[in-house]
Amino acid sequence: MDKFDIGLHETYKSILAEYLVTNSEHSLYKAGKFSRELIKNNMSPEDMINLHVSVVQTLIKNLPKEVSDTNDLLLEVMVGYGLAYLEHQSLRDRQK
Amino acid sequence: MDKFDIGLHETYKSILAEYLVTNSEHSLYKAGKFSRELIKNNMSPEDMINLHVSVVQTLIKNLPKEVSDTNDLLLEVMVGYGLAYLEHQSLRDRQK
Repeated sequence: MDKFDIGLHETYKSILAEYLVTNSEHSLYKAGKFSRELIKNNMSPEDMINLHVSVVQTLIKNLPKEVSDTNDLLLEVMVGYGLAYLEHQSLRDRQK
Repeated sequence: MDKFDIGLHETYKSILAEYLVTNSEHSLYKAGKFSRELIKNNMSPEDMINLHVSVVQTLIKNLPKEVSDTNDLLLEVMVGYGLAYLEHQSLRDRQK
């Protein structure tokens, strides 16, 4: 994980940790803002799910194995979305 | 949920249910194939995460509240990816 990723990891971790305590609309608002930042930084949906799974593992101790398994399968599905996102970037660059 | 969505829900549910029991490479392979089907059907990453969260809730009884909360925040982040995906479809259609 490089410096840039560590920054995103820490930002998402703090938003999620806050939401787990407050369940507040304000945290959801921060999540929406964070989403726009990710997209601006060309982070694919696959990268985002990787980030999410990694932060959830850090924040929730003793995550049930069943939940980790569902995350593994989700990551597999998201590989396809990572590729579609690359295609999107390439189309967008060509239109510039 | 329309007929089409019920079909996808059932397909993903069966793949995930199988994976929870077998943890097999074969289920992961099916997940990759399913991903390509979703993309062919213009299902956005946001729709996919909605589907995933809904299937996880169906399959795992007594899902810890913390896990449901993390899913809620993830859904909020994915809204931005849903919008980016719509833009991708629009760019792709213009290039046809």
